Amino acid sequence: MSHLDRIATPRDLRDLSEDELTTLASEIRDLLIRTVATNSGHLGPNLGVVELTLAIHRVFDSPRDKVVFDTGHQAYVHKLVTGRAADFGTLRREGGISGYPSQAESEHDIVENSHASTALSYADGIAKAYAIRGEDRHTVAVIGDGALTGGMAWEALNNIAIARDSRLVIVVNDNGRSYTPTIGGLATALTGLRTNPRYEQVLELVKKRVNAVPAVGPAAYDALHAVKKGLKDALAPQGLFEDLGLKYVGPVDGHDRPAMEQALQQAKKFGGPVIVHAITRKGFGYDPAERHEADQFHAPGPFDVQTGAEKPKGPIWTDHFADHIVQIGARRPDVVAITAAMMHPVGLDKFQARFPERTFDVGIAEQHAATSAAGLAIGGLHPVVAVYATFLNRAFDQVLMDVALHKCGVTFVLDRSGVTGDDGASHNGMWDMSVLQVVPGLRLAAPRDVTRMRELLDEAVEVADAPTVVRFPKGPPPADIEAVDHVQGLDVLARDGKRDVLVVAVGAMAGTGVEVAERLSAQGIGVTVVDPRWVKPVNPALVALAAKHQLVVTIEDNGVVGGVGAVLLQTLSAAGIDVPVRIHGIPQEFLDHAKRAVILERIGLSAQAIALDIVHEIAGTETHGTAAAADHRTLLDADQKH
Amino acid sequence: MSHLDRIATPRDLRDLSEDELTTLASEIRDLLIRTVATNSGHLGPNLGVVELTLAIHRVFDSPRDKVVFDTGHQAYVHKLVTGRAADFGTLRREGGISGYPSQAESEHDIVENSHASTALSYADGIAKAYAIRGEDRHTVAVIGDGALTGGMAWEALNNIAIARDSRLVIVVNDNGRSYTPTIGGLATALTGLRTNPRYEQVLELVKKRVNAVPAVGPAAYDALHAVKKGLKDALAPQGLFEDLGLKYVGPVDGHDRPAMEQALQQAKKFGGPVIVHAITRKGFGYDPAERHEADQFHAPGPFDVQTGAEKPKGPIWTDHFADHIVQIGARRPDVVAITAAMMHPVGLDKFQARFPERTFDVGIAEQHAATSAAGLAIGGLHPVVAVYATFLNRAFDQVLMDVALHKCGVTFVLDRSGVTGDDGASHNGMWDMSVLQVVPGLRLAAPRDVTRMRELLDEAVEVADAPTVVRFPKGPPPADIEAVDHVQGLDVLARDGKRDVLVVAVGAMAGTGVEVAERLSAQGIGVTVVDPRWVKPVNPALVALAAKHQLVVTIEDNGVVGGVGAVLLQTLSAAGIDVPVRIHGIPQEFLDHAKRAVILERIGLSAQAIALDIVHEIAGTETHGTAAAADHRTLLDADQKH
Repeated sequence: MSHLDRIATPRDLRDLSEDELTTLASEIRDLLIRTVATNSGHLGPNLGVVELTLAIHRVFDSPRDKVVFDTGHQAYVHKLVTGRAADFGTLRREGGISGYPSQAESEHDIVENSHASTALSYADGIAKAYAIRGEDRHTVAVIGDGALTGGMAWEALNNIAIARDSRLVIVVNDNGRSYTPTIGGLATALTGLRTNPRYEQVLELVKKRVNAVPAVGPAAYDALHAVKKGLKDALAPQGLFEDLGLKYVGPVDGHDRPAMEQALQQAKKFGGPVIVHAITRKGFGYDPAERHEADQFHAPGPFDVQTGAEKPKGPIWTDHFADHIVQIGARRPDVVAITAAMMHPVGLDKFQARFPERTFDVGIAEQHAATSAAGLAIGGLHPVVAVYATFLNRAFDQVLMDVALHKCGVTFVLDRSGVTGDDGASHNGMWDMSVLQVVPGLRLAAPRDVTRMRELLDEAVEVADAPTVVRFPKGPPPADIEAVDHVQGLDVLARDGKRDVLVVAVGAMAGTGVEVAERLSAQGIGVTVVDPRWVKPVNPALVALAAKHQLVVTIEDNGVVGGVGAVLLQTLSAAGIDVPVRIHGIPQEFLDHAKRAVILERIGLSAQAIALDIVHEIAGTETHGTAAAADHRTLLDADQKH
Repeated sequence: MSHLDRIATPRDLRDLSEDELTTLASEIRDLLIRTVATNSGHLGPNLGVVELTLAIHRVFDSPRDKVVFDTGHQAYVHKLVTGRAADFGTLRREGGISGYPSQAESEHDIVENSHASTALSYADGIAKAYAIRGEDRHTVAVIGDGALTGGMAWEALNNIAIARDSRLVIVVNDNGRSYTPTIGGLATALTGLRTNPRYEQVLELVKKRVNAVPAVGPAAYDALHAVKKGLKDALAPQGLFEDLGLKYVGPVDGHDRPAMEQALQQAKKFGGPVIVHAITRKGFGYDPAERHEADQFHAPGPFDVQTGAEKPKGPIWTDHFADHIVQIGARRPDVVAITAAMMHPVGLDKFQARFPERTFDVGIAEQHAATSAAGLAIGGLHPVVAVYATFLNRAFDQVLMDVALHKCGVTFVLDRSGVTGDDGASHNGMWDMSVLQVVPGLRLAAPRDVTRMRELLDEAVEVADAPTVVRFPKGPPPADIEAVDHVQGLDVLARDGKRDVLVVAVGAMAGTGVEVAERLSAQGIGVTVVDPRWVKPVNPALVALAAKHQLVVTIEDNGVVGGVGAVLLQTLSAAGIDVPVRIHGIPQEFLDHAKRAVILERIGLSAQAIALDIVHEIAGTETHGTAAAADHRTLLDADQKH
């Protein structure tokens, strides 16, 4: 029986000896590596927080004390010591352990959202609630240095600094590279600290003293005290935190668990908000990860445990974007690129290599990405802001007010739009084609294949007086789907003489639309399939085409409420065209994690389900009972639950 | 001829003597006071930046250099010295001078958005663009200490700190109270600075030296240098800025124009990003404003110039909310209140006075307001977050992911929803009832009068597992409109036996709906008027009622795209109910400033226009040409402009 098998709750960690804890850490690393090698997932960040997490759970009393992980992808170790080690082999599989904290899985999990920089705000609220209720509980927030570049974190620190009654411990997990290397003035200050030779010396001193005593005791405490005192003058970030009035402990070697525990004990005793600054190494303890230059195996696909070699995989949408934006950059010296701490994941690394002076990584700061893009546009350039679709929500106000109101030519490229699946509810990019509908002047394109992505991107960067958006999904693109005709900006993908049904297939749903047509043709139903390419504004040619059909069916990889189908319906209604419109999209609810294909099938976004729905519709029968009809009803049902 | 009359462009400022500039400052203050006393507008902030603005325009060369004002309500002085003094009497009137910078008014105006904390991001982008293009221009951002509490400002500073080539000067206009007193650790640090006796002494020294020399020269420079050097140890914020790697000049007395000019010249010469820290007094130079304890005449209504006495005005929606939330707080000890730097404007001051330990002002930090509210809910309390409707867009991602995904019971109160008018495009609260439609589980109420506001607020704070939103408009509420019947949560406001038309009148549009019914009844058309009270989720009783009518007309004080009418249409369509729906709302475009009533009339949200539209609809004639029909067409037209 391994040590890990014996940890049913975090309290069990307290009974282990130093040697057992060291062995446990090894077992945890081994399980992390083996599981992610098979299931894929986040590896580097979790290897970096093994000792830090064990220390937190030995010092604090979860779930009575609350432990909030920022960007929950660093919570695997937490899962392993809160009763989920036995099931860990199901990581990220449908019905299995989520890749992020999950309230449904465990009372130890608090925050499911994996958008960065939220933990301090949550923790501020929780700690204030306990203070008001007079409950003597602690709240612990674990946040990476990268997440501190997000504006929310600053807003929270500014408030936490004056919350004297909050029993709040902020553990800054400083590895210098939450995704890719952390950017900005803050990162420079932290780097200055980490590379200070005195810091290395004192860390060594700490290690020696701690190892010299049988258990954690006053000697280790003294050593830690010496770290703080000895380095005081050299600590830029300490100054920053202390300027705000925040108490600070550290820096501490985050892989030296006894030292971490001492620091946390000290913080716990303080009674007010405290920062514990832990220095960790992403990928720690697994050579291939530590040596991996791009991102220390941040979130690898399946790989070989011995060599660390990732299984080869074909190009994804991102790779094609990466190549094409370089081509645009070569012919357009005014095009500049912006990423929010995800240079490689959004494919801007090639652009950066070619045009370093025209590439900006702003940190985990989507708001600044959007508004500084507006500034770049005012200054005469054309910025391309590439982010994951779900993260653009962080900059909704900035897209609306700072870019659109000011008629700035800025192109937003939304990768991972639609259902992404594996990473759970907060990663699905199912909101953009609804919320962006309200933005005056904004133009939104959904390419169906790589050729269209290139065309639409070329068109987007020509728009100088309004924001444009080009969105495409996760994973590999389909083979090109050629149009049989072009009608005033629309691509007709299939058409027969009879005009029974118009299928409006948006972006990634084009192939599904074509398959729907094939199924219906086989039953003698005449179908036109059209890809609108630009889905906002509504193309008048699409309205005219809809008026010539008996039924309009829209298919989009986006929430059903207020999306492309909904706005087409509204436009037809306003024009007095009363052709029925059936809208197929993602039900307006938070989706559990599973593979994209599995989810699309489950929610009825399959050719089979949609074709069946259309057959019933045309036959005039009730469609209740089909998956597609269930989507429509969601408009009522989901909300009636409340 | 006054001195102000001679200032056609900022360059004319350079020809004035010291005495003339002093006289000019007096003339400007006089004009500001007289104009706002009549037209209303922002007074305190502008009185505080007279010398600071003159100094900027003497040192920099607008419009070649760009001057970006954060929260443009501090740009009146800028307007007066950039050719708009003669027209200033039309301030905030329809067709007159806007209360914010306006690109249409002047090439000297850059940023029209009056949401706070954006200026640094804009300026970062503009300065980077000039650096890339090799243009030797400066960018100046003027930002208040309050706006520095917003997360965007932190994101921007973090990036500006590493933009070594940016010719960027950040003027921090530190008056300690951008709206009401600035909050948080940053504010504490700044206060520590301002109240430091050494600071006062050195400022005196500066004044004496500057006054001792005939013109600004090396002596003043030395004095400034002494300020910086002498205060170095006491300067918390300097430490904070310098931790990030930002150069810092100051603090400077912002009302000492020669000192300001010296500091700006020094910053201009530096060649990289620099912070100039100016200390100002809100309301400076006008006794009634300086003595006004709540907010130094931040934005008074019409007042008497001699006494500063504001014209009495009746209670507005905010006042009724203020009273009722205190009642809720008295019976519910778990209810806590959160404001984002607007305690008085959103009416939480009474709650704060009664329950200080349960009231939180988080600074200009809507993101933190929402997510810390989620934390408070997790901790067992029920937070009420009161903000202006347009500012909730800043926290869209947090409402969606941090509150709704986590099923937190948080009530958002949206004041100034719908058309607000005077303050221009970025203040209209016309987005919430569209974008919030996508949030799973969220419930949204639009009370039509004060009694309903109380009822709906009472219902909202009972919801423990989802976010709720209660939205009401600017200005005085109408007299109560009593229901003639209640049907499963719906209030029926008017009904006759014939079921020709169902008018769904949302919130503030209830009175308009009733008047529409009166006009139609006179023409023999049978009308039912219903107030849905809760507009999200769609009430199944509303769907059933719609199915029994020949025509459904929706009226809402919200953008037409994706709003209440649109979702009702979509719901009816999904249920296979094909009653025609005519949606009346705000055209989906940015509205020019004017009085709310004037705008509602102009955009066709009047009983007369809507009744006429219905008559045409029923007669089967084309409705093109009526104002109401124009709203519908906007769906197509607005976007076709591009």
